[in-house]
Amino acid sequence: MTQPQKHTWKTKLHEIIYEADTPAGKAFDVVLLILIFLSVVLVMLESVSSFQAEYGKYFYIGEWFITIFFTIEYILRVISIRKPTAYIFSFYGLIDFISTIPLYLSFFIVGTNALLTIRALRLLRVFRILKVTRYIGEGNKLAKALKDSRPKILVFLFAVMILSVIAGTLMYIVEGPEHGFKSIPVSIYWCIVTLTTVGFGDIAPVTALGQFIATVIMIMGYGIIAVPTGIVSAEMAKGNKPQPDPQKLHLNTQVCHNCGSKKHQDSAKYCHQCGYSLHYE
Amino acid sequence: MTQPQKHTWKTKLHEIIYEADTPAGKAFDVVLLILIFLSVVLVMLESVSSFQAEYGKYFYIGEWFITIFFTIEYILRVISIRKPTAYIFSFYGLIDFISTIPLYLSFFIVGTNALLTIRALRLLRVFRILKVTRYIGEGNKLAKALKDSRPKILVFLFAVMILSVIAGTLMYIVEGPEHGFKSIPVSIYWCIVTLTTVGFGDIAPVTALGQFIATVIMIMGYGIIAVPTGIVSAEMAKGNKPQPDPQKLHLNTQVCHNCGSKKHQDSAKYCHQCGYSLHYE
Amino acid sequence: MTQPQKHTWKTKLHEIIYEADTPAGKAFDVVLLILIFLSVVLVMLESVSSFQAEYGKYFYIGEWFITIFFTIEYILRVISIRKPTAYIFSFYGLIDFISTIPLYLSFFIVGTNALLTIRALRLLRVFRILKVTRYIGEGNKLAKALKDSRPKILVFLFAVMILSVIAGTLMYIVEGPEHGFKSIPVSIYWCIVTLTTVGFGDIAPVTALGQFIATVIMIMGYGIIAVPTGIVSAEMAKGNKPQPDPQKLHLNTQVCHNCGSKKHQDSAKYCHQCGYSLHYE
Amino acid sequence: MTQPQKHTWKTKLHEIIYEADTPAGKAFDVVLLILIFLSVVLVMLESVSSFQAEYGKYFYIGEWFITIFFTIEYILRVISIRKPTAYIFSFYGLIDFISTIPLYLSFFIVGTNALLTIRALRLLRVFRILKVTRYIGEGNKLAKALKDSRPKILVFLFAVMILSVIAGTLMYIVEGPEHGFKSIPVSIYWCIVTLTTVGFGDIAPVTALGQFIATVIMIMGYGIIAVPTGIVSAEMAKGNKPQPDPQKLHLNTQVCHNCGSKKHQDSAKYCHQCGYSLHYE
Repeated sequence: MTQPQKHTWKTKLHEIIYEADTPAGKAFDVVLLILIFLSVVLVMLESVSSFQAEYGKYFYIGEWFITIFFTIEYILRVISIRKPTAYIFSFYGLIDFISTIPLYLSFFIVGTNALLTIRALRLLRVFRILKVTRYIGEGNKLAKALKDSRPKILVFLFAVMILSVIAGTLMYIVEGPEHGFKSIPVSIYWCIVTLTTVGFGDIAPVTALGQFIATVIMIMGYGIIAVPTGIVSAEMAKGNKPQPDPQKLHLNTQVCHNCGSKKHQDSAKYCHQCGYSLHYE
Repeated sequence: MTQPQKHTWKTKLHEIIYEADTPAGKAFDVVLLILIFLSVVLVMLESVSSFQAEYGKYFYIGEWFITIFFTIEYILRVISIRKPTAYIFSFYGLIDFISTIPLYLSFFIVGTNALLTIRALRLLRVFRILKVTRYIGEGNKLAKALKDSRPKILVFLFAVMILSVIAGTLMYIVEGPEHGFKSIPVSIYWCIVTLTTVGFGDIAPVTALGQFIATVIMIMGYGIIAVPTGIVSAEMAKGNKPQPDPQKLHLNTQVCHNCGSKKHQDSAKYCHQCGYSLHYE
Repeated sequence: MTQPQKHTWKTKLHEIIYEADTPAGKAFDVVLLILIFLSVVLVMLESVSSFQAEYGKYFYIGEWFITIFFTIEYILRVISIRKPTAYIFSFYGLIDFISTIPLYLSFFIVGTNALLTIRALRLLRVFRILKVTRYIGEGNKLAKALKDSRPKILVFLFAVMILSVIAGTLMYIVEGPEHGFKSIPVSIYWCIVTLTTVGFGDIAPVTALGQFIATVIMIMGYGIIAVPTGIVSAEMAKGNKPQPDPQKLHLNTQVCHNCGSKKHQDSAKYCHQCGYSLHYE
Repeated sequence: MTQPQKHTWKTKLHEIIYEADTPAGKAFDVVLLILIFLSVVLVMLESVSSFQAEYGKYFYIGEWFITIFFTIEYILRVISIRKPTAYIFSFYGLIDFISTIPLYLSFFIVGTNALLTIRALRLLRVFRILKVTRYIGEGNKLAKALKDSRPKILVFLFAVMILSVIAGTLMYIVEGPEHGFKSIPVSIYWCIVTLTTVGFGDIAPVTALGQFIATVIMIMGYGIIAVPTGIVSAEMAKGNKPQPDPQKLHLNTQVCHNCGSKKHQDSAKYCHQCGYSLHYE
């Protein structure tokens, strides 16, 4: 009990940055959320050549402002946790690092295009913050329904793949490179475009036989789309029925200062992972 | 009881315009419905340049006829209600005004194109009239199913958005401006076109890697479409089960003369909002 | 009981043509089915100009052969029923007549293109014959599920229509005739193409705002497609539950000689419509 | 009991090749699976002209290596079974033969393009191996749901076909060959492209009437897609309910040495098809 009191400012920082139980913690999350969205909008606008030509330097300044904020946040996150490596090598720790570093790199090394992607990864950080919001319950239900139907969906996808390879090969032979079906992989691409009812039309069958096979593929796709829908509907309907839900047990947003593990019960006094005390005044 | 008798013609007018319990009230609604549809058809036909060239002046006359009718209707609505401001600043009151005024404005001020849109808003007035019909029950059920599944759908849409931004950025890097993916926003647009299985084909991947990513996006879209369907199906199935329905309580189309509030029970004697008497001979 | 015996050949003819209880009746139906399909295939092949150029005269001969067969069938149908007008002015009676007459007309009057359509109506005759087969049970279930969900689907379609008109008008103003959105009706057509996720790509938004609105329409379409699916799924699921089905009562294919009404019970002795005896040896 | 001991090596070979109960049997299946996928990837890469030009000879060597392996496997399969004809003329026996022979044929006879397809049939062999894996349970459920809804789906497809023929004929008359609707079969092809919401856009209506009919077809397609989804959803939901499942009875992967029949119970001592002993030490 005495040990945590040594680092009172660290404790407070930890509460603000990692948790959302206090007003300061909530405010911090909101600011972070806004900056992440601003940052992603910036990356988007930079890619529009006419905007980049006119407002390029403002984008650059904004980008530096956001990057410095994220850098400070990253350093504070490392400082305020007891076991920094637990954060640094966690999934979100790596994303935080990878999405912050590109601008510094581009300052010294040339190669801006590849860095664009990496900055877009910042968007994934949104999920960490949203874990705190009330929508997470619905998200969990959706994720659960999807997870429960995973074996069915995998079998289904596997069947779609094999069907696409066989139908694609067939179309390659029937239509051939002269009608846009340049190779078997391209034909398989076309086949999936058709089967999923997307139908770009960049490649389309020209011969009568090709159009007939396309018709069969389309009607199969029409029927096949019913399968994932049926799977998820059935899972969803199951989920609607009253059933004891282990998710209902209330878990707060406290994070252990020692090991960084989350989701402690309201009544918890010690971390359920490392046994470290959760109480510090 | 004596007060309403002073304005017998107003009372009758109110019954005709705002309610659909009397034959005159029903007839008025039917006439209004026909004029609204006529008016929308007129706006459509005017936009076809060959029709406009040939029949332009007839359209103009028809438009003035309809506008004058709607103007008179608007004035009568204001007169026949006890608290005109309650109507004027209600949702439908504003739509009535906004969709009637453009022609008068265009008579004095130039700028016809922008006015076209506003006149199309008249279509929204249809919903007020349809509130009276028997289909409203089904509409309510649909709306309820959609409303109940709103949190799930919002979470789902949010996930789709983030997925689109990440996939769009990826495609921008892989395909680049030379293959039509001019900027990240355009790539995101393409990504949503693909994910929703619309597939215009105005932009389509050309490189092998781009086509592979497109394939993954399409199959994800194929699976993802199952989610809203599953959500609504499950809600719908729930709705089918016998359950006490508060909607079943019969509400008539009477509208209070004083405050304009609707949906009074058949046995009601006084407005449930302002206590004003509903009986006037 | 004595009266029907006078026309024994008529009675037999009636059984063969109108019913499918006897081997001869079944054989007749199969022959008819084959000829209808042959006839439709003929109409299709005639439309392919290369086939028409080469085999045109064989098609012509085949067409005359089929038409004469259908003419004889039509005459026999009229003769073998007691009240010919009941057949002639029935739905299928009119289709039989309309789909047989075009070739005779084309022999005297010029105007072949319009006749093509009418001959394709023969396809509808298939449904009369199929009423006899075992698939009709499943067809009835499907039709019932669709019929029961009709009010919901109508409300849904109405909402889609109004949405399309408003979104179409918006796109007409945003994109305008110079980007293919030539008039409001064309914009509405595009809007439905997009909302239903068909996406031909003959018209596609070019401006940034247009693409943004298109994105919103697509995502709405994506969500909206869940509604009819949910409706039918829920109806379907209801249909799966055991329930007393009035359809289960076995009805045979006998047709009254007097009034032509169908679906008599196995135990029936007299027509349930006109009271005429169903027994004749 | 004495008879099988004569062929101990055959017995072991049989266990390795036909069964997956022993480690050797599992390892053999994994090797086979990898080689099949490698082989299919080879066929795909060969079709890409740039790869074929550069790495053609390596592909050729790889193809011979795989073909020789499959040839040896085929011979071993024939040897290790007691009744070789039962294997040779079984579905998978024929596929094994047909997908192995092309390379030998192409060595003596010219005609490589047609052989490409046949080699792609190797992919079907994957299903035999997968029968052994744990996903087969989910696959069975899916297959059962699809099989149970087959009569409904057939009726549905039949209705779609007739609708397509009638709508296709209509579009051929309205739009005609000058707008891409070259013949009735092509119009039907377009109609199915539209009805299934694929929408390539290689053919698109140009006239106002054609676009109106297209709109109707699309909205019908939008509604119709709900039907197969509803059917499968309902079947799926039924499948989720607890019910006695005959599939649950555990069947191992032993295959009779005499007749090749599969799926014996764990406790079985004699083949349930030919009565031949399943025990051999």
